[in-house]
Amino acid sequence: MSRLDVTEKIVTAKVTKGLKWSDVAEKVGKSKEWVTAACLGQMTMTAEQAAVVGEIFGLDATEQKWLQVVPYKGSLPTTVPTDPLIYRFYELVSVYGTTFKELIHEEFGDGIMSAIDFKMDLKREADPNGDRVRILMSGKFLPYKMY
Amino acid sequence: MSRLDVTEKIVTAKVTKGLKWSDVAEKVGKSKEWVTAACLGQMTMTAEQAAVVGEIFGLDATEQKWLQVVPYKGSLPTTVPTDPLIYRFYELVSVYGTTFKELIHEEFGDGIMSAIDFKMDLKREADPNGDRVRILMSGKFLPYKMY
Amino acid sequence: MSRLDVTEKIVTAKVTKGLKWSDVAEKVGKSKEWVTAACLGQMTMTAEQAAVVGEIFGLDATEQKWLQVVPYKGSLPTTVPTDPLIYRFYELVSVYGTTFKELIHEEFGDGIMSAIDFKMDLKREADPNGDRVRILMSGKFLPYKMY
Amino acid sequence: MSRLDVTEKIVTAKVTKGLKWSDVAEKVGKSKEWVTAACLGQMTMTAEQAAVVGEIFGLDATEQKWLQVVPYKGSLPTTVPTDPLIYRFYELVSVYGTTFKELIHEEFGDGIMSAIDFKMDLKREADPNGDRVRILMSGKFLPYKMY
Amino acid sequence: MSRLDVTEKIVTAKVTKGLKWSDVAEKVGKSKEWVTAACLGQMTMTAEQAAVVGEIFGLDATEQKWLQVVPYKGSLPTTVPTDPLIYRFYELVSVYGTTFKELIHEEFGDGIMSAIDFKMDLKREADPNGDRVRILMSGKFLPYKMY
Amino acid sequence: MSRLDVTEKIVTAKVTKGLKWSDVAEKVGKSKEWVTAACLGQMTMTAEQAAVVGEIFGLDATEQKWLQVVPYKGSLPTTVPTDPLIYRFYELVSVYGTTFKELIHEEFGDGIMSAIDFKMDLKREADPNGDRVRILMSGKFLPYKMY
Amino acid sequence: MSRLDVTEKIVTAKVTKGLKWSDVAEKVGKSKEWVTAACLGQMTMTAEQAAVVGEIFGLDATEQKWLQVVPYKGSLPTTVPTDPLIYRFYELVSVYGTTFKELIHEEFGDGIMSAIDFKMDLKREADPNGDRVRILMSGKFLPYKMY
Amino acid sequence: MSRLDVTEKIVTAKVTKGLKWSDVAEKVGKSKEWVTAACLGQMTMTAEQAAVVGEIFGLDATEQKWLQVVPYKGSLPTTVPTDPLIYRFYELVSVYGTTFKELIHEEFGDGIMSAIDFKMDLKREADPNGDRVRILMSGKFLPYKMY
Amino acid sequence: MSRLDVTEKIVTAKVTKGLKWSDVAEKVGKSKEWVTAACLGQMTMTAEQAAVVGEIFGLDATEQKWLQVVPYKGSLPTTVPTDPLIYRFYELVSVYGTTFKELIHEEFGDGIMSAIDFKMDLKREADPNGDRVRILMSGKFLPYKMY
Amino acid sequence: MSRLDVTEKIVTAKVTKGLKWSDVAEKVGKSKEWVTAACLGQMTMTAEQAAVVGEIFGLDATEQKWLQVVPYKGSLPTTVPTDPLIYRFYELVSVYGTTFKELIHEEFGDGIMSAIDFKMDLKREADPNGDRVRILMSGKFLPYKMY
Repeated sequence: MSRLDVTEKIVTAKVTKGLKWSDVAEKVGKSKEWVTAACLGQMTMTAEQAAVVGEIFGLDATEQKWLQVVPYKGSLPTTVPTDPLIYRFYELVSVYGTTFKELIHEEFGDGIMSAIDFKMDLKREADPNGDRVRILMSGKFLPYKMY
Repeated sequence: MSRLDVTEKIVTAKVTKGLKWSDVAEKVGKSKEWVTAACLGQMTMTAEQAAVVGEIFGLDATEQKWLQVVPYKGSLPTTVPTDPLIYRFYELVSVYGTTFKELIHEEFGDGIMSAIDFKMDLKREADPNGDRVRILMSGKFLPYKMY
Repeated sequence: MSRLDVTEKIVTAKVTKGLKWSDVAEKVGKSKEWVTAACLGQMTMTAEQAAVVGEIFGLDATEQKWLQVVPYKGSLPTTVPTDPLIYRFYELVSVYGTTFKELIHEEFGDGIMSAIDFKMDLKREADPNGDRVRILMSGKFLPYKMY
Repeated sequence: MSRLDVTEKIVTAKVTKGLKWSDVAEKVGKSKEWVTAACLGQMTMTAEQAAVVGEIFGLDATEQKWLQVVPYKGSLPTTVPTDPLIYRFYELVSVYGTTFKELIHEEFGDGIMSAIDFKMDLKREADPNGDRVRILMSGKFLPYKMY
Repeated sequence: MSRLDVTEKIVTAKVTKGLKWSDVAEKVGKSKEWVTAACLGQMTMTAEQAAVVGEIFGLDATEQKWLQVVPYKGSLPTTVPTDPLIYRFYELVSVYGTTFKELIHEEFGDGIMSAIDFKMDLKREADPNGDRVRILMSGKFLPYKMY
Repeated sequence: MSRLDVTEKIVTAKVTKGLKWSDVAEKVGKSKEWVTAACLGQMTMTAEQAAVVGEIFGLDATEQKWLQVVPYKGSLPTTVPTDPLIYRFYELVSVYGTTFKELIHEEFGDGIMSAIDFKMDLKREADPNGDRVRILMSGKFLPYKMY
Repeated sequence: MSRLDVTEKIVTAKVTKGLKWSDVAEKVGKSKEWVTAACLGQMTMTAEQAAVVGEIFGLDATEQKWLQVVPYKGSLPTTVPTDPLIYRFYELVSVYGTTFKELIHEEFGDGIMSAIDFKMDLKREADPNGDRVRILMSGKFLPYKMY
Repeated sequence: MSRLDVTEKIVTAKVTKGLKWSDVAEKVGKSKEWVTAACLGQMTMTAEQAAVVGEIFGLDATEQKWLQVVPYKGSLPTTVPTDPLIYRFYELVSVYGTTFKELIHEEFGDGIMSAIDFKMDLKREADPNGDRVRILMSGKFLPYKMY
Repeated sequence: MSRLDVTEKIVTAKVTKGLKWSDVAEKVGKSKEWVTAACLGQMTMTAEQAAVVGEIFGLDATEQKWLQVVPYKGSLPTTVPTDPLIYRFYELVSVYGTTFKELIHEEFGDGIMSAIDFKMDLKREADPNGDRVRILMSGKFLPYKMY
Repeated sequence: MSRLDVTEKIVTAKVTKGLKWSDVAEKVGKSKEWVTAACLGQMTMTAEQAAVVGEIFGLDATEQKWLQVVPYKGSLPTTVPTDPLIYRFYELVSVYGTTFKELIHEEFGDGIMSAIDFKMDLKREADPNGDRVRILMSGKFLPYKMY
């Protein structure tokens, strides 16, 4: 058994029971972004969170333990994602990658935006020309050290 | 001659003259995000914008014309970026890709967030534990059509 | 269980029962192009469509639910397709890719042809020198935004 | 010198002189689709066509000869194209590849749509919800031979 | 179940029963080259051919139906084949690819040798210095169309 | 300087002077298949052959010496060729690779068809349904040794 | 069932029974190099050899037949091997590849060292500074033919 | 300037002057295997060796200094070599890789054959059936440490 | 059965029983670094070590034997690791690779740091600005031999 | 001009002048590890440091400015490094990657060792069995945030 098996069980249960990630997140008491990532095998839960999630999706004790183990992260099957929704994010990195780099360095100097000390918030933005997806990302700036 | 030559000339002039993208953007009259991407060879300028940028970086008439030609987009030399700052964005796609997918579909149904009808705003977020990079992305949701 | 399992069950049932996609499409009440893509795991059905398709291919309630879940899209096992029929389309992108780009930009300016707000129609074109495959594609033009 | 050099010279002249492919095509007397592909190094011209194109773009006798040599085809720098417009066509192959295959085989049996005995027509389709790109492809069906 | 399962069943039966492809081909009434390719999952059989092959290898009715479905072609597990015999053919393409191209274009102009309207004949060529493999390939020349 | 430079010089001279490979081959006194491969940088010439070729294409003494050096072979820029004519040969390896393997082993046992002790002959085959490309390959069979 | 299954069965039996390849080879009556390669699915056995090997590893009649079928060769799971011992051989090809090429051509002219008509002998070489692995390879030189 | 430039200069001088590696090696006073690898940019020379080599190939003082700098090793342009002679060595690793591994571990336990503390000797082996290439490799066995 | 199955069984047992690698290492009597690598299928145990590990994780006699067989090493599923923790080490190689090379060569001359005669020690380093991971690596320097 | 040009100029000057990185570092007043990485184009210098380095290697004012621009990082030409010294580090990641992951998570929980807030110290470790390379790495632990 592996974390992947638990992820598949969660996803199958979600389809069968018709659950929503935002409801799961509310019960867990964390953001829908973090909870979804955790249920999809990318984050590590506490025992209490695992118990809540286990209750929702019908996971046994061992499966709940797997949720508390740090997973081998990476959620995509190919280097360049084939799914159109996910590809658009990859395209943003491809087209705007050097722009991200220039502007962050202009503002902060040499370093990176952390993808670990990181959070995000995704919501619908009403717009008369068609609603928009609005994603707010916030990552700590980490400067390179000179030594 | 190609757009790439113009991009290299711009970048070299920027280093030599010690310019800032935000100042360039102000003169162009557009956001620093769009102007930087355009100067780095990813967007298409109008004749007026090309003239302003040409003035700033010392580009001749033909080079200004190249700025008005739709470029072959893609700013990175490798499929998986090696630069740590840009890699962190690729890592976000890798780790959170399926999360983006689940939450956007949960909110909007089948479709994508456009990477074309898209804008972003990048700024510093003061934080006592270390300042943060804050990126606000907004892309139009495009639903799949049934026909 | 995953959407892939449902796709395989559909394809196997189609072979065993000797069904035709155009007949399936007629029962679903949508084009053969969209219905085939949906049955092959690339599109999302409504509950009613899933019920019709489930009836035709003998899918149970859970399998019908999977048809209503937005799938992870991408129908090919390799980056460059090995199947000769599908490869010819990849070859068209390889040989005519820059031509598509030049002509669409010449007509519309910077932007793309949407692959989401997209439809197509595939039919036989009688020809004394050998019949031809005729594919009509129509995708909304999406202009890049300046901001 | 190679065909690539001639292509680059043509593209640079086009930017400098502000020409349009449709005007070039009219002078050559062939479709804009074929002429653009030929100017971009994917098709082979006759001596007469090369002379016309040479006149337009200022090519000398040797450069015109290169236009009459069958080129090494393939217009893209990477296996998966990074340019968003061209990528959308690759995405269509990825998402609809198996659909193309099923429907063509259902109509014609085993074989392929030729990418050689092939023509296409690309035009603007007016639409109140935003104009559309309309591409009509026509390729001869080639059946596999049993022997 | 998929065509691959049928191919594996055929190959296993061939090993167990000690059959020869040339004998199978004789019973099917087609060349050994085409029949072997068809049994290995690359070609499409008629109902009659499938019945003969089913009889030989012990395939049931559904398995025989799979033989009549157009397969997803491509018989090799890697882009560059690892098997030495098959690699030598890949090496011929690598070393002589541009030679094939030059000579076919010199004789026929721009176009290709069809791999669809194609047949081949493979036989032993007695030679005092060691027997040789003799392969005769014949493919229809398809010229590029100007339009 | 490298062999590649000499190959490019030969190809450019051929375009400029409008030469044919079959005429070159006749002057060299070897088959057009071997001579073309040699001129394209895949085979090694004798001093006499290099002198003839040098005369034809205007190569100086050092360039003629390069023709007598064993080249680093491999004539294609990508692992999977993008050129349609050359790709068809790759497709033959992909589709018929396991067929080649089965039939050669059935006739000869374990071993390979040599791509070194190899020759080929390419010619036009008149056919009322459209002329065909006919390629006759002959390679020595090399059995694996047991030791 | 496939040859891979037989290889796995042999390897598992070897671990369980604690056998040595050199003992297996002695019973088969061939070199340990050839016998190990054959047991690992890379060479083809005679019926007698298969019977001996089947006796040692507990293979049934069908499994013994698989040992007599020419296998699809290639023993490594990745293009660049990850295992350090095997990688060192790949490194030798990478670092000394052009040296092998130069020295063999200097001695023999254009051609290759056969990897088919090939044998090797691997043994321990006692050395006061630490024992060494000594590998003697011998492959027939095959000259390129001019035709 | 880089080591690569020096390598190219050496190779060009060798072609122009018609030198042999074995003669160069004799003047350097080391084996032809090591000297060839060093001249091809894979090994590091002493000042004395660089002076001898510089004299032979006409290298100036700076170029001789480059020969004394440890190079970035790796002599091949692609992961899988396209040159037939070098490919055969890659094929040996592919086919015999697991055999090397099994036999070295059987004799020595866990560890590797060093590719650093390594030497080889390549010579012609006369054989009435055609001369053979004989390569003797010797590398120190390095055991994995338990700690 | 293979070593991979044993590794999976160990990892699953560890999750279920809530064990710690440092406790396992203490019972085995070797460092936690070596023992963890061995349990994860990268190192070879003695019979005594395998018995201790078997006792801890509930492995039967055959599974314990697999722990004593030299494994096919390489613990990662992709060439570039997707897991952020492991990727950071790959990034260190990418960014500092040439620095490692320069400094080791400056100190030792041409050669490598052995990854076989190698040990490491990983511990927490208390720091008021946030604790740090401290890794001490020690590998024998192996000089290239001149011969 | 780009940072790469400056790096090449530095490396060439170092070879020509016979400088040592440790001497350069001493003049810059930072560790040899950081200074070497910075000179090799991976780190960003202050104006003072750039002036010192410029003095040492003979860089003009513009070249010194490039040293103060944040570079596009990544120092290796291939995904898997071909140079044996650098490969050994990649091998450590491949073999010990999951071990790093397990032990860091066991000690710290979910998170990573920073490759940005990172320093290292590389020195010779005298050893009677052959001197060793000793590398001490220290990176801040960054925990994943729950939000």
